[in-house]
Amino acid sequence: MDNIIAQEARLRCRYNQLTNTAGIAPGYLQANLLVLPSKYAADFHDLCLRNPVPCPLLGVTVPGDPSAVRPAECIRSEDFDIRTDFPTYRVYSAGRCIESRRDLSDVWNEDHVGFLIGCSFSFEDALTAAGLPPRHQKTGTVVAMYRSNIPLLPAGIFTGGHCIVSMRPYRPEHIDRVRGITRAYLSTHGEPVAWGWDGAKQLGILDVAKPDFGEPQIFEEGEVPVFWACGVTPQIAVEAASNKIEGLVFAHEPGHMLVTDWTAEDLQKLKPGII
Amino acid sequence: MDNIIAQEARLRCRYNQLTNTAGIAPGYLQANLLVLPSKYAADFHDLCLRNPVPCPLLGVTVPGDPSAVRPAECIRSEDFDIRTDFPTYRVYSAGRCIESRRDLSDVWNEDHVGFLIGCSFSFEDALTAAGLPPRHQKTGTVVAMYRSNIPLLPAGIFTGGHCIVSMRPYRPEHIDRVRGITRAYLSTHGEPVAWGWDGAKQLGILDVAKPDFGEPQIFEEGEVPVFWACGVTPQIAVEAASNKIEGLVFAHEPGHMLVTDWTAEDLQKLKPGII
Repeated sequence: MDNIIAQEARLRCRYNQLTNTAGIAPGYLQANLLVLPSKYAADFHDLCLRNPVPCPLLGVTVPGDPSAVRPAECIRSEDFDIRTDFPTYRVYSAGRCIESRRDLSDVWNEDHVGFLIGCSFSFEDALTAAGLPPRHQKTGTVVAMYRSNIPLLPAGIFTGGHCIVSMRPYRPEHIDRVRGITRAYLSTHGEPVAWGWDGAKQLGILDVAKPDFGEPQIFEEGEVPVFWACGVTPQIAVEAASNKIEGLVFAHEPGHMLVTDWTAEDLQKLKPGII
Repeated sequence: MDNIIAQEARLRCRYNQLTNTAGIAPGYLQANLLVLPSKYAADFHDLCLRNPVPCPLLGVTVPGDPSAVRPAECIRSEDFDIRTDFPTYRVYSAGRCIESRRDLSDVWNEDHVGFLIGCSFSFEDALTAAGLPPRHQKTGTVVAMYRSNIPLLPAGIFTGGHCIVSMRPYRPEHIDRVRGITRAYLSTHGEPVAWGWDGAKQLGILDVAKPDFGEPQIFEEGEVPVFWACGVTPQIAVEAASNKIEGLVFAHEPGHMLVTDWTAEDLQKLKPGII
């Protein structure tokens, strides 16, 4: 694959020729965004490292420089700007979304640090390629998401909240394959955290027909729910800490992701170095 | 600090001049051990990466070579052997400890892979240096440990078990400092996962006076429990998967750790590279 595909996608987002990035630049990992004032960056970084399944960190901007991301493999192009290269952004103040905007140029300041967090679009492509497409893609609905009872392990000011999980229905005899396919995507939530009706109970989900976010999913005969950690979790953690955060916080508009230069293969190669 | 201190400690363990390694080679991180047949190594590696707070991975042996550890910074000396350089080992078959022995030379085969997992001795030194020594060190008891309700996120064959937590009593006004000191030790469990009597309830611990492992701890006037993730957790995960594991599994004898060449500072420097 040629990196030009990822860079072209980012430029189309910059110039607002794209909104929803689902299905764009297949093979490249897409990222969620969270931008915080620098004094909270170390705590948020720790939160991601301590909770890597719901909050998988793909990259962090270099303090003071919205064009540079560490590690450099995440965004290889020098023509990059985290303030413009997502299709749409949200602005939060005191934990509430106060504005949606096309770029952050007017509101970003030198003190902001941006965190790029893995998203499940990557493993959904792989499931589809294996003949096991997620139901919500076939029905054109938003994936069902639930508050689980898996606690987020605290990091500094981020002491509250639980893991959000997304759910896709599968037949029991397909679960081993579904687990195996998504296992490789360790940096974009990886394999499921629970499955089956007993799995739903273990997560504290009493009624699968009533998701907390997104839309209910249709179960076909014999199917059971399969749950993955979800990239909405870090936003919940930031909201839970909002009374401790001064200044503006930014995020991407849901579904409006950044196309990175990471591929699933890159992250597998990196694995032995992650300790 | 000179690495000779860590290497000397390992040689003293090799020649059985040392048993309990608590307090040995201050400043160097000590490691727990788990050795598995290679076909389970990828799943166990994933388990550690998905649950880094209870199962912090410090290093992995190179398949087929008991003298080489990745990353190389973990053990810098070429004169190393994972089969001899812990003071004492345990041999497990079908999830049960069947033998305790001084070295693994006779039972190790080329197919075994060894995992070095961070231990809390490191942050206990730092707490003591800050005038906040753990109670069990002052009373000469074994730290109290409990089964918590924090689920281990599944990885391959490792689908069961919960996080084990250790507990140290502190005064409420010291908790911020205790959190801050241990936060730096991200690769050896890091900051607490819960604290206070409400924290105990959140973890599902009904009676702090009755630990599941170790010994009850004495609370002085006004003190509350502070809980950290515990390095016993990976052993519990392996025991829970024992019906899926064929062949011998090895571990260290509790308290009989490996002194590594990692220092807390090394791991802080590495942090931005951990993604």
